[in-house]
Parts: sequence; structure tokens; C-alpha cells
Amino acid sequence: MPGPETQRLFDTAKALQIGFYLGYAELAHEDGQLRRFNTAITVDKAGKIIAKYRKIHLPGHKEHEPWRRFQHLEKRYFETGNLGFTAFQADWGHAKQGVFGMAICNDRRWPETYRVLGLQAVEMIFIGYNTPVHNPPAPEHDALSNFHNELVMQAGAYQNGTWVVGVAKAGTEEGVEQIGNSIIVAPSGEIVGACTTLGDELAIARCDLDLCNSYKNTTFNFARHREPEQYRMIVERKGAIAPEGD
Amino acid sequence: MPGPETQRLFDTAKALQIGFYLGYAELAHEDGQLRRFNTAITVDKAGKIIAKYRKIHLPGHKEHEPWRRFQHLEKRYFETGNLGFTAFQADWGHAKQGVFGMAICNDRRWPETYRVLGLQAVEMIFIGYNTPVHNPPAPEHDALSNFHNELVMQAGAYQNGTWVVGVAKAGTEEGVEQIGNSIIVAPSGEIVGACTTLGDELAIARCDLDLCNSYKNTTFNFARHREPEQYRMIVERKGAIAPEGD
Repeated sequence: MPGPETQRLFDTAKALQIGFYLGYAELAHEDGQLRRFNTAITVDKAGKIIAKYRKIHLPGHKEHEPWRRFQHLEKRYFETGNLGFTAFQADWGHAKQGVFGMAICNDRRWPETYRVLGLQAVEMIFIGYNTPVHNPPAPEHDALSNFHNELVMQAGAYQNGTWVVGVAKAGTEEGVEQIGNSIIVAPSGEIVGACTTLGDELAIARCDLDLCNSYKNTTFNFARHREPEQYRMIVERKGAIAPEGD
Repeated sequence: MPGPETQRLFDTAKALQIGFYLGYAELAHEDGQLRRFNTAITVDKAGKIIAKYRKIHLPGHKEHEPWRRFQHLEKRYFETGNLGFTAFQADWGHAKQGVFGMAICNDRRWPETYRVLGLQAVEMIFIGYNTPVHNPPAPEHDALSNFHNELVMQAGAYQNGTWVVGVAKAGTEEGVEQIGNSIIVAPSGEIVGACTTLGDELAIARCDLDLCNSYKNTTFNFARHREPEQYRMIVERKGAIAPEGD
């Protein structure tokens, strides 16, 4: 990366002095093995890759399930990301550096994603997603796809006092309809920019990173208000276990 | 508890066969000390206290800050709850027991509250709150009070596949205006019942606990999809620490 297909993207962005986030299927040679990750990178205005993230929350299933209209085999083809939810400083040519983070698709539904980045003082999280409208095991969720998409990013932004930029690959791919609903969310949780079609579209917002302070220094002043000792179950338990009855 | 002021509430609820949740300032004699907690109890249809919770996320400040129009001294007068976020089985006279949990006021803004209860397979969380409209250190949040109130409870419900019932003490108390916006949230994150005034009001919804399964068994099947190893920072770090710059 960049390879022959993406070099032009890097060149054009550099010529226009625009940084970007790009998601791709990564083939890595690591520890003497060929490994596959669902990966995203952030590229600065000079065309330099400044951060890499490998998706942690792989959704779906591992085996072929013929009853589904389409398969969602991320758990089969990818390994769980091994780079952590790592925030990074980046300089976009302004007076002050900012703290940025990345997530991919299903990561955005998990509050832990935002919190681990929030604990690194993140000020803007980039999230790309390809989300089918249809959820085969729970078709009753279909009509709520955009609502859920907005809900998780708005809550993640507010609860961590950070900007969240969620960008969809929208429309139909290989016969699978995917949601659009790309949004730019302020640290208040308010949506301040959005795409409204399923075609190519550009959403623009002025994102002042200093607006994060209004939340990070008050309601979500973690150093004053968090109670980590009470959260141990979050790391000590994977699945849910009901309490004993009488 | 019940004391002279609350006995009538217990008696009436028992006569009507209605369970309830009640928040109060608790004076406890424990470990040879007089201790104060912000506490809530759940009482069953027979008038029996079946669970107690002591508020963990105490908001506000500890010292008198005269510049504020009113003080918010929970951190001064109460100790942090020492009973954990404990879910409990309860039988409301239906065929199946349910798993319930409690939280108080500011707890609802923290995704950890819902997640620790979610990891105990909670199906309904009761939350009482007294929330001033005005946030002295961040008056720019005032106009968003109801939006934030709904956002956190809707996200907590969806992300854990649980009902959330949030009940406000609304209106004006000691010159402080408080929000209303009591809501009943389904495991889908949808609001299915709500109060719309700041006066006494009753919201009713039929809450089928089995609707939780649609989320607990798919998108939020924790045993399949959570990655606790990646969440360690949530318990190992209290405040936010920014990454090093270049």
C-alpha cells in the first residue's frame, strides 16, 4: 500500500493536499505466515501513511450457512486485529496537533471501541463501513438500520467528547443492498453533516477539535468521574451470565 | 426502609399488587461508621425489598463553588456505591423470571453501567434521575438535555439488548428546574413510552422481555463477538492520556 490501484489516489490527494482514511483487505506476511486482516489506514496531506488499524470486532459467522440470502464471512476470512485501538497524533497543517483514532464497520456498535480511544484523549474517530440493509438472522432490524447506525456513533461521540466521522460504501454490491447514512457527529452527539442518497456524495463540516473540551472537561471528565474498579467484568467476562434465581 | 414516610407507599403498592423502584438518600450504619449513599431499591408486588443498589457514578463537585447558581454536591455528601452493578432475578407473577438491574441518574450516561449489567444478561434496567436543565460549567449543553438523556438510554438498551426504563423527578425543586423526559426504551433502542410534561404523569408500555433475544442472540451475542482482551484500558486507566506526538 499504495499498490497499482491505489497509487493514483495517493497522488491526487497529495496534489490537492487532502488527507484520507482508506479501508482495505490486507494480506500481511507476519511471523512467517500469510495473514489476512480487515484494515484501515490514515494518510496525511503529504501522501504519507501515518497510522494503521486492523479491525477488532469481526461480525457475522465463520461457516457457510446456505439458508442466508448472502454470506457474511468476516470471521472466516480475517483474523482479529492485532494492533489495538490505537490513537495517534496527527498534524493537518493547523496550529495544533489533534488526536485521531480509527475503527471499522461493526466496531462502531461497541461502546468499548469509543471508550478505549476516548481514554487516549481522541478528538476525532474515522469509521468506514459496508453495512447490508438486510440482517438475515434478524430481519426485524432492517427497518432500523439507519437509526442504529446513527445511535451508536452519536452515543460514542457524546460519551467520549469526540468527533466521529462515519462513512458508508453505499448502494448495491454483488446484489446486496447496503445502507448509506454517512454522518459527521460533533462531540455533543449532534449530527452536523450527512449524506442523504445512496450514490456518490460529499458531506462537509467544519470540525473544531477544541469543541471536545466542553465534554471532556465536564460531564465526561474521566479522571474525576470514572470508576474503573467497578468495570472489571468488562474485561473478565466475555459472554453474558445470568444471576442465580431464588 | 420502609420508614414512616414510605410505609404507605409499600402498603398501597402491595394492595394494588404493583412492584416499584424507589430512590432515596440512605443513612447506613456499616463497619462501625455512619455512611451516606445515594440508593435505590426494587420492591416486589408483595411489598418486599428484593434488591438494593448504591449509586456508583457520583457527578458534580465536592467543594462549595459560589460562582454556580446552585450547587451539585453529591461528591461531598455521598460515598461511591459499594454494592456493584448487580443484576437480579425477579418474578413479577408471570410464567418466566426476568433479570433486572438498577442505576441512578448520572450512571445512565456511562456505557460501562449498561455493559456490566448486560454481562449479567439483564433484560430491564430501572433508572431514576433528578437532572437540572442547567449545567453551570457548560451552559451550552442545556438545550441538549433531553437529547442527551434519550441518547444514552437508547444506546445502552440497544447495545445490550435490554429494556431501559428511565424515570425523572421533573419540574422545579428549590428553584432548580429539572428535566422530565421519562422514557421506556425497547431493546431495539426505540422509545415505546414517554412522558411529555413536567407534571405528574404516567407512561405505560407492554414490555416483553423476550424481545431482548433478538439482539442478545445476534449483533450483541457477547460470547461470539466481544473481545475483552482489547478492552483492558477501560479498567487499567481512569483518566485520559493522549498519545505522544512526533
